[in-house]
Amino acid sequence: MDLDALDTVPSFARRGKSAMREMLDRYVTRFAELQEAMYAESRQALLLVFQGMDASGKDSTIKHVTTGVNPQGFRVSNFRQPTYKDMEYSYLHRHWMTLPERGRIGIFNRSHYEEVVTLRVNPDLLAGRKLPPRPVDDAFWEERLRDIVAFERHLVGNGTTIVKFFLNVSKKEQRARLLERLNDPTKHWKFDPADIEARGRWDDYITAYESAFQATSTKQAPWYVVPGDSKPAMRVIVAAIIVEALSGMKPRYPEPDPKLSRAIKAARKALA
Amino acid sequence: MDLDALDTVPSFARRGKSAMREMLDRYVTRFAELQEAMYAESRQALLLVFQGMDASGKDSTIKHVTTGVNPQGFRVSNFRQPTYKDMEYSYLHRHWMTLPERGRIGIFNRSHYEEVVTLRVNPDLLAGRKLPPRPVDDAFWEERLRDIVAFERHLVGNGTTIVKFFLNVSKKEQRARLLERLNDPTKHWKFDPADIEARGRWDDYITAYESAFQATSTKQAPWYVVPGDSKPAMRVIVAAIIVEALSGMKPRYPEPDPKLSRAIKAARKALA
Repeated sequence: MDLDALDTVPSFARRGKSAMREMLDRYVTRFAELQEAMYAESRQALLLVFQGMDASGKDSTIKHVTTGVNPQGFRVSNFRQPTYKDMEYSYLHRHWMTLPERGRIGIFNRSHYEEVVTLRVNPDLLAGRKLPPRPVDDAFWEERLRDIVAFERHLVGNGTTIVKFFLNVSKKEQRARLLERLNDPTKHWKFDPADIEARGRWDDYITAYESAFQATSTKQAPWYVVPGDSKPAMRVIVAAIIVEALSGMKPRYPEPDPKLSRAIKAARKALA
Repeated sequence: MDLDALDTVPSFARRGKSAMREMLDRYVTRFAELQEAMYAESRQALLLVFQGMDASGKDSTIKHVTTGVNPQGFRVSNFRQPTYKDMEYSYLHRHWMTLPERGRIGIFNRSHYEEVVTLRVNPDLLAGRKLPPRPVDDAFWEERLRDIVAFERHLVGNGTTIVKFFLNVSKKEQRARLLERLNDPTKHWKFDPADIEARGRWDDYITAYESAFQATSTKQAPWYVVPGDSKPAMRVIVAAIIVEALSGMKPRYPEPDPKLSRAIKAARKALA
């Protein structure tokens, strides 16, 4: 896959903001309905992974596609720098800690993919990890990718559907968004000088992402590279993919067992 | 491997109880020393897995080889029937929850291997697990074994040494021990009628164990089949293997950095 060759604005973005807002609303409504059935069924879990360059819109996309969905049904985990405690374990540990249980949706805002992208671009960060001494070569990263594939395959095999989003912002649009952050005091908290450094290594990030997609985009846990330069359009696409994934899971309200059916009849009679 | 063909009493068991007690004491002392260095080093973890038929001596072996070792350095996790909460996740989840952090030792009294042994012999137990519908055939168990290999390989690659013990009691000796339980009121709490049922399916358990060993005894995470009919001898063997594993990890007290060295010198002077 050549990320730079992909469109970062889909053609339907020309329909205008309010048309896209309507589309989003319809998808979010359907998302909420399917989530409720999934919660009642309580057999399957859904894991949504969000990755993207800085200012690609991970936070705002998650906010917009989940606002209107019952918060009891999902949890957003934000994977910033690992803590000292996180580093006492293998890197997958903190991700295992917040996996969604049956009937729930887990949303990873950044994820275990930081371990094969950000760390691959900045291998110096490995120094704090207390890993066994060994060369950090291609084989090292391939082992990580292999472990990630095995991790996801295990989850899928045991009832978790996995969908992974890469929010594909262009370098030009990123520049505009970072400038906006710098010019808006209420957005200063989101600014990190490291973002500028990362921007300087754009091509290295893209290369690391491409390797990750190649190794880990499986039928069971596919990656979706979402055009990222129009935020309203991006939200529509992400919501549509979530609805498609949830529909494919065919969540069904459990059949009440005959005993419960009789109890429901009796209760209805007693109350009538 | 043909489990039934292996000796269940090693030849050195003839040396007598007090000789074996002395050997055990020496190993436990060494175990405690190495554990302390490992704790100070705080880079590597050790995971000890104990499996065996009922009454094979898992509890008492763990008790005897760890008594005398600093309890802050290790934790024993007893994997009985999974709880309702455990079953909300994939079967590896509860094992991930209690993995040892760097510098520590985790002891699994029963383990994720129950998932490919006890469940394979009693597939009816899968009914409560809310798994995706699929045939429970050989491919199902092979997938589980493959996932277990991937799980352990990931841990080993990230700094955990894994050693797995199968306490190999003979069917005849098990009979004697179960009878002893029935005749001693202080041991009645350990008796479970299911043990008798499991004994009736001895060969099925052995077959399931053999498949598990074949698939999962790797160089990185080997299985040790320990002769189990002499408890004192078994303890010596287990302690010896633990000491060997810990020695192989070469735990080293961290070098104080020059700043700390200077502070130590200054403090020594001030207190003298």
